[in-house]
Amino acid sequence: MIHERELAGLEAGVVGLGLMGSSIAVALTIAGHPVRAVAPLKNELTAARKTIRQLLQHAAGSGLLQHSPEYYLNRMTLSEDFKILKNCSLVQECVVEDKAIKAAVYEKISAHTREQAVISSNTSAIPVSLLQELVPDPGRFLGIHWAEPAYLTRFMEITRGRQTRDSVASWVVDLAHCWGKEPTFLQKDIRGFVTNRLMYAVYRELFTLVAAGETTMEDADKAFRYDAGSWMSFMGLFERMDQLGLEDFLETFSRLFPELGNASEVPEIMQQIVRNKARGTQEARGLYAYTPEGAAAWENAFAEFNKEIYHLADRYQELKNG
Amino acid sequence: MIHERELAGLEAGVVGLGLMGSSIAVALTIAGHPVRAVAPLKNELTAARKTIRQLLQHAAGSGLLQHSPEYYLNRMTLSEDFKILKNCSLVQECVVEDKAIKAAVYEKISAHTREQAVISSNTSAIPVSLLQELVPDPGRFLGIHWAEPAYLTRFMEITRGRQTRDSVASWVVDLAHCWGKEPTFLQKDIRGFVTNRLMYAVYRELFTLVAAGETTMEDADKAFRYDAGSWMSFMGLFERMDQLGLEDFLETFSRLFPELGNASEVPEIMQQIVRNKARGTQEARGLYAYTPEGAAAWENAFAEFNKEIYHLADRYQELKNG
Repeated sequence: MIHERELAGLEAGVVGLGLMGSSIAVALTIAGHPVRAVAPLKNELTAARKTIRQLLQHAAGSGLLQHSPEYYLNRMTLSEDFKILKNCSLVQECVVEDKAIKAAVYEKISAHTREQAVISSNTSAIPVSLLQELVPDPGRFLGIHWAEPAYLTRFMEITRGRQTRDSVASWVVDLAHCWGKEPTFLQKDIRGFVTNRLMYAVYRELFTLVAAGETTMEDADKAFRYDAGSWMSFMGLFERMDQLGLEDFLETFSRLFPELGNASEVPEIMQQIVRNKARGTQEARGLYAYTPEGAAAWENAFAEFNKEIYHLADRYQELKNG
Repeated sequence: MIHERELAGLEAGVVGLGLMGSSIAVALTIAGHPVRAVAPLKNELTAARKTIRQLLQHAAGSGLLQHSPEYYLNRMTLSEDFKILKNCSLVQECVVEDKAIKAAVYEKISAHTREQAVISSNTSAIPVSLLQELVPDPGRFLGIHWAEPAYLTRFMEITRGRQTRDSVASWVVDLAHCWGKEPTFLQKDIRGFVTNRLMYAVYRELFTLVAAGETTMEDADKAFRYDAGSWMSFMGLFERMDQLGLEDFLETFSRLFPELGNASEVPEIMQQIVRNKARGTQEARGLYAYTPEGAAAWENAFAEFNKEIYHLADRYQELKNG
């Protein structure tokens, strides 16, 4: 096992400083690592500095910090230059889901890190076994899939690729516990990972229903939020079956499975929505209408909600155990 | 619009007093209706009395009651006899998902209610258009789908069948607002309704993954709870797309849709689980292992959680609106 105090001696790198990467950088610095954060995109660095500062303030307001935001900022190096990664023990990649772009990034990471550094990808779309073929030593490559906000969720999927070494995987699982995560370890490299596969099955059905005119965006959102949202922070799907009792499930499954959408193609209505390139609440232009003030209120409310739900889920995990 | 004070003059019936029916009876009495609750199954009545008392106490502890639990109990009539329904304006059926059993129940309800009484079913498995053919006046039949605990969720799906009259549907939507619900109104009678269709799409994928050995029950539960559970009380699925931004969605959809499970048959592994007839936490025998004390702690924790999430979701709905 790794002791938490050892984290101060392990430099951690993050490459790709969009919202997710910035959030991961904050999570790693809060956990105790000296963080080396690289912005490979031009102009990304300025935005990242601002984002990271905001996230640290949010973390402070959520009661997660032992020191001031400044303390953590001072322990972090931000740069466009991959050279800052040279002493990192772990480098987390979180650039866009494009194999060619990731390949270029891995080449730079490999050129600037020590031989024993572990490289991880936050991908939820490209198989880890494919990505690991892009690095000189595939045995020390694996998937670490974070959820946003990375410092304020227990979620983490750690996925080994075909060539990932056992010792590397178990070291990362240990680390994840030190970061305060409840990691799910995936022995097999499945396409889409567990939560994504589950969520995309919901999205597929959602678009099937909307395309058939059987519900509207607003109604589907309201129904899902007030139904599934009323228990999902408390329990998983199998626990939900336990809670409801299993009697009606087989009957309902037999009836509903043949009715569910099976499309392989992305429905036209979704293509339209996605072509729309709405950046959602972040830019006050989404599937829903937002004013800039409304979008800001929405984002602030969600930041506050994150904080509450994190502590709530935690507290009830203890209560459930009696 | 119906004024809330008018509810005291509208008797509401509930037929079928399992957990769901008892919970609905409590919701209707809290809303102000004199409630007439019928237990069609032998021995159901004794258990229902106990359950309803417990639920009222839970409602009291959740800050939902203006009077004592006794006050509400006194305004409620529980019986095995359908005659108590004679002055009801609305009768909510919540017996098992079996068309023949429902048919027998509707016959008794119709024989004992006034001509203008509206009959609703809580079904989430049988099309409302089919069920309404079982009553003498299909025009005043519709689906009212509640979530458990009925008095402590905003969720409600109101579904019109092919023959449901407009005036009946709009009267029930008005009523639902008086009950403190955020009803979703479904113009079309879709099989499984919105939330169920979405949830069963998740279940199908879940069993596909488990059957293929790609995840375990525990890991899937942990991942889903800490990922989806961290935002779902705050927003629906389209709102989630807005929050994440839409850039990667099309790409990921194109990749994942062909990978998702498309089974029409219920997977063997699920059949085994369901044959197991575990009644879950209620009887300390579920998919997971529970001791009686553990199951009780679990149920108590969930009752407490329900209360918190109800108020939390509500509070954030206001904050989101700025």
